[in-house]
Amino acid sequence: MNNIGKKGKLLIAQGGGPTAVINQSLVGAVLEARKFPQVTRIYGALHGVSGILNEDFIDLTQETTQNLESVACTPSSALFSTRDKPDANYCIDMFNIMKAHDIRYFFYIGGNDSADTVRIVNEKAAQENYELRSIHIPKTIDNDLLVNDHCPGFGSAAKFVAQAFMGVNLDINSLPGVYIGVVMGRHAGFLTAAAAMAKKYPEDGPHLIYLPERPFTMDKFLSDVKETYEKYGKCVIAVSEGICDNKGQAIVSKISDSIEKDSHGNIQLSGTGSLGDMLAREIKEKLNIKRVRSDTFGYLQRSFMGCVSDTDQREAREVGEKAAQFALWQNVDGSVTIHRTGNYSVDYRLSKLEDVAKYTKSMPDNFINQAANGVTSDFIDYIKPLLGSNMPVAYKLRAPRVEKILNK
Amino acid sequence: MNNIGKKGKLLIAQGGGPTAVINQSLVGAVLEARKFPQVTRIYGALHGVSGILNEDFIDLTQETTQNLESVACTPSSALFSTRDKPDANYCIDMFNIMKAHDIRYFFYIGGNDSADTVRIVNEKAAQENYELRSIHIPKTIDNDLLVNDHCPGFGSAAKFVAQAFMGVNLDINSLPGVYIGVVMGRHAGFLTAAAAMAKKYPEDGPHLIYLPERPFTMDKFLSDVKETYEKYGKCVIAVSEGICDNKGQAIVSKISDSIEKDSHGNIQLSGTGSLGDMLAREIKEKLNIKRVRSDTFGYLQRSFMGCVSDTDQREAREVGEKAAQFALWQNVDGSVTIHRTGNYSVDYRLSKLEDVAKYTKSMPDNFINQAANGVTSDFIDYIKPLLGSNMPVAYKLRAPRVEKILNK
Repeated sequence: MNNIGKKGKLLIAQGGGPTAVINQSLVGAVLEARKFPQVTRIYGALHGVSGILNEDFIDLTQETTQNLESVACTPSSALFSTRDKPDANYCIDMFNIMKAHDIRYFFYIGGNDSADTVRIVNEKAAQENYELRSIHIPKTIDNDLLVNDHCPGFGSAAKFVAQAFMGVNLDINSLPGVYIGVVMGRHAGFLTAAAAMAKKYPEDGPHLIYLPERPFTMDKFLSDVKETYEKYGKCVIAVSEGICDNKGQAIVSKISDSIEKDSHGNIQLSGTGSLGDMLAREIKEKLNIKRVRSDTFGYLQRSFMGCVSDTDQREAREVGEKAAQFALWQNVDGSVTIHRTGNYSVDYRLSKLEDVAKYTKSMPDNFINQAANGVTSDFIDYIKPLLGSNMPVAYKLRAPRVEKILNK
Repeated sequence: MNNIGKKGKLLIAQGGGPTAVINQSLVGAVLEARKFPQVTRIYGALHGVSGILNEDFIDLTQETTQNLESVACTPSSALFSTRDKPDANYCIDMFNIMKAHDIRYFFYIGGNDSADTVRIVNEKAAQENYELRSIHIPKTIDNDLLVNDHCPGFGSAAKFVAQAFMGVNLDINSLPGVYIGVVMGRHAGFLTAAAAMAKKYPEDGPHLIYLPERPFTMDKFLSDVKETYEKYGKCVIAVSEGICDNKGQAIVSKISDSIEKDSHGNIQLSGTGSLGDMLAREIKEKLNIKRVRSDTFGYLQRSFMGCVSDTDQREAREVGEKAAQFALWQNVDGSVTIHRTGNYSVDYRLSKLEDVAKYTKSMPDNFINQAANGVTSDFIDYIKPLLGSNMPVAYKLRAPRVEKILNK
């Protein structure tokens, strides 16, 4: 393999759930790749791998820089997405389409399933002795990719969750009660844990945080809520949609009568208010607390317009740009990974596809408190820089009390 | 009544649901009132009228300007709120507390119930020949106060709803299906209608908007969804939590087994996902569409940190400042009201308390389309300036299609 990539086309696609910054990665890769003379055209596949199978390509070399920059600042996948998880035959079909179009560079922006797709396609190309540079570009609001310190998309979703809980805190200060916010995250609790960043004053919520990394029991939950409510006269709770009992069964699967499964066999957790409603009902009935409210953040948290971490934005741009640089200057395959090198600084490396593709990661033990209902200062140190420089800050009045006259 | 107000204290409180800008009104009133020598002290009552009854006052003359300005930019009621709706006796008790503290100026920031409280207190003072200037300062995300062109708090909540639907649009473009967003609004559909501001490109959602001003029937709803889904391959729907059948019964009350009522006798609509879940279930079952998601925006929409309309912010500040000016320069009572004088400009007047207190308003007929599933351009013209100058804008790729080779 020589050090200059083969002349040919570049194909880029986006997979899995949208994020606020996934288009930064797209645009970072496209604008950088456009500078290389060996790239004859840059195609975008519509709706991820399914668009490759159907040859649904658009020619991104005929897109203006101005519009690309505008798209970069727009959340969700501009090339659209798919939940398809290709098997070996699907990948062979994709590969044949790529060959027909003289694709020599394949970039896929997505989570660990997408990394696995890139791995299979790459292996197929090697078997056929077809020169194809395949790069996986990371993204996921779940923050669960191996090797990476953190994942593009997470910081912005975490910022949404933190800002939502800041607002809820203020709301519950104003009209006290119990509030449950249900946050996305099937196996990894990072996004739910981000709610902790809403705390500023000592009495602020979230007072309790429940993560999928620790078994959830209703008795412990109710006694936690009771204790908090008695102490503060209010209780703000962040709950991951993926909380499970001690046998690993999702709590939501016990209450939902008709459970929908996706093509990966995962049950549907989002897009329904049932978990939050059930927990609220338990608190009302068992603890006899009147004002109990629950919100399920659902789809708002992953592509809310106008809520983005500038750090996340910059890094998402860079992983896209690095993908082009690795493929075109160094003529190598792999997954672009983010590594924390200081407080706060990062570096990008190219890791082996199989190291990123195989598994996902969960919150490490030192990020979760002993009582399994909150996070540690290690987690706060970890997440703080990821939310970026533009976090809003809440203030409260500090005026002195006036002495009572009639009621003293 | 001479033209200079009586020397004495000023009491200010906040009532009802929080908004993103209600503290602007508080700070506008406090900072302006501080300039008048006849104001000996400015007290803030904690938790609205209940704080007056309990003499829970703080001394806002001992609050720094810096902190007041920071609080002004913080959503939700810094003085906390209450759902208490005082009757005549409650008002008499409040009045006696005010007399004991030599309160000569009473400002209450809230909706039409708050205006009514101010009216009763004001009448009581007049009966007793006690000189008290009573001013109602408007706020409500429902935008339903009479006399006013629009209400402080609405623009920011509307901005949240519009930004949320912008994101959802992009999300549903990426992974197509049906999406239902349930928006606050018991009787007035303004906030739900604000979702229309998410539309930019012709195929953008929300494709359907259901308001409490028009009777909701499941058959019509399902046929609307079917038609849209067949046309676009996706369907984004905004639904008011307050939608009713043709007898005026709330749809949510038909599905919720245990209905909670507040102190006004209103059933609880927010803080539960049941309406959205029920509509999603109907679409799945009756239309046989697989990917149907619903989110209930709940409490996020009224105090989300970092989502504020600058126009709303400025106007909320001004109605507070005007309250102080009306009471202290002109020595009059009433409700500060917002009037649109141009495109876009407003003026503030002092209206009669009884004109604002008695009823609420709904969306006028010319804001709702004939099919009762969307809004008109009149509504768009009305709401556009209220969202302020800092609305984010979504962009999509416009690159040309590539000709197919293998699948042609």
